[in-house]
Amino acid sequence: MLPLEITILGCGSAKPTLRHHTSSQIVSRQGALYMIDCGEGTQRQFIKYKFHHGQMENIFISHAHGDHCLGLIGLLSSMSLDNRHYDINLYIPADFEEILKMQIDFFIHHADFNIRIHPIDCQEPTLIHADEHFEVMALPLEHRVPCYGFLFREKQGNRHIKAECIEQYSIPRKEIQGIREGLDFTTADGRVIPNEELTTPPDPTRSYAYLSDTRPMMEYVDLLHGVDLIYHDATYCEGDEKLACQYDHSTASEAAEFAKKCNAGKLLLGHFSSRYGNEGQMLKCATTHFPHIMLADEGLTVEIADKTEEGPLFIEWRK
Amino acid sequence: MLPLEITILGCGSAKPTLRHHTSSQIVSRQGALYMIDCGEGTQRQFIKYKFHHGQMENIFISHAHGDHCLGLIGLLSSMSLDNRHYDINLYIPADFEEILKMQIDFFIHHADFNIRIHPIDCQEPTLIHADEHFEVMALPLEHRVPCYGFLFREKQGNRHIKAECIEQYSIPRKEIQGIREGLDFTTADGRVIPNEELTTPPDPTRSYAYLSDTRPMMEYVDLLHGVDLIYHDATYCEGDEKLACQYDHSTASEAAEFAKKCNAGKLLLGHFSSRYGNEGQMLKCATTHFPHIMLADEGLTVEIADKTEEGPLFIEWRK
Repeated sequence: MLPLEITILGCGSAKPTLRHHTSSQIVSRQGALYMIDCGEGTQRQFIKYKFHHGQMENIFISHAHGDHCLGLIGLLSSMSLDNRHYDINLYIPADFEEILKMQIDFFIHHADFNIRIHPIDCQEPTLIHADEHFEVMALPLEHRVPCYGFLFREKQGNRHIKAECIEQYSIPRKEIQGIREGLDFTTADGRVIPNEELTTPPDPTRSYAYLSDTRPMMEYVDLLHGVDLIYHDATYCEGDEKLACQYDHSTASEAAEFAKKCNAGKLLLGHFSSRYGNEGQMLKCATTHFPHIMLADEGLTVEIADKTEEGPLFIEWRK
Repeated sequence: MLPLEITILGCGSAKPTLRHHTSSQIVSRQGALYMIDCGEGTQRQFIKYKFHHGQMENIFISHAHGDHCLGLIGLLSSMSLDNRHYDINLYIPADFEEILKMQIDFFIHHADFNIRIHPIDCQEPTLIHADEHFEVMALPLEHRVPCYGFLFREKQGNRHIKAECIEQYSIPRKEIQGIREGLDFTTADGRVIPNEELTTPPDPTRSYAYLSDTRPMMEYVDLLHGVDLIYHDATYCEGDEKLACQYDHSTASEAAEFAKKCNAGKLLLGHFSSRYGNEGQMLKCATTHFPHIMLADEGLTVEIADKTEEGPLFIEWRK
């Protein structure tokens, strides 16, 4: 399967600490980079973990709180200083559009690329982006300002042609892509070989849901059923449920219950409040609800490496 | 003498690198903190070097390029999250006022303190701030947008009363502050003791000039004559004079020549371009023009520890 990885650039909450940066992460598939959120200092984290913006065409901003978007102007400025030529797409909540445009007009000079702003304004899960790698849906979340989660669903790839069939039926090179895409093959003597005989099914598709900042969104349990990986708001630890409710965030345990209901492959906890010295207690509490949990951390990379009958296979490492 | 220190939070230029953060520094006198410039990520550097905003009432922004001001909104947000109650004064170029106010209105909610904006708009060196520690002048610089340097001049302290005189003339406690401030003393039998007999002169005052981003400002050589410490734009190395002219910056050698003309106690080079792997060559070239030079670096603290007949005495360490 093609590499599909999520790298955490920042998983703190409103106030940055020396342990955690504000929110940002990179979804990467076969070298194509997608940024989700861009808190202050993201551009430095981005270069620290050896990413290059030349491979990135799409940035998704969940909501217009500073810890999710204050790094955007600096990142765009550096792109212009690097003489970037490729356009960049910004998917942002509609209420962020006016101030963002004013900041761009004020701070970014002489950009040789277009900054294409795509305002998001929906009440239901809505497809907002599609390319050769992913379809991306915006999922309205429950937060104090308009806020969207993002569901990345890998595009269905081509079927795999059986090497032995190419020889057996003398399939010319120019026919191969069509067969991968599902066509039957007609031999020189007019015999039709059905596609199923020539190919094996495409790789299973993978999916990733980013859900922060939010209360647990039980109405998305069906939509997210069987999702491979969820990154979920875990601002608070068990015991601080009232704060989680008050500020429209979640506890780690609430995130775990949600992931369990979704039958997710794995849950990545993040958006940690600065009030906790570490997240050990969160992990301990949350795993009593759902066993497949990791704590996000700056530099952590999670690869959705394969899908087997037992479920998705993950490989984690630190960049 | 009371402690007077300058700590570098960031001394890179437009693009942050893994070696240098964008511009920010702290002037500290007897626990009172003054921030100069506030590039992206400054709030994290601020806590990294163990400063607390409760001791800071004044922030000075040289100009409205992102690498000098994009950290302001995040810093102010964190102040509000910390339930700060003390007002904060922002001294900013007038052209930055409108967009800054719009950003504050959009991003900062429920602040229990006032953000007092003091626009700077002058063509000549102008006193913009005075308190018990410093008088601060704004010095118009030569850059592509309105840009100001800042000259911090320590307030003249009180004279020192001679301990032996208190006993000799039975000076009551309530008279002492007046004598420190220059009053004569009249004894119980009506004899007037002149102040010069009772006191020694106040400590010499110290001064610090921040000059970035700019071409060397030769018209300030008289104003800055004998200044203790200068931080100067050294974006480029010798050999890149054309770039320095083109972008209204300075080379390290130009900064050194300027400091020499000012008869400065010491020169701190900063605002280094990301194009150089290190600043060794800059230092080498610059010291051929003026010997008392240091390279700025994140965490470097320079104390103006004393003033002797030979000049100011500096102590440097890393925070």
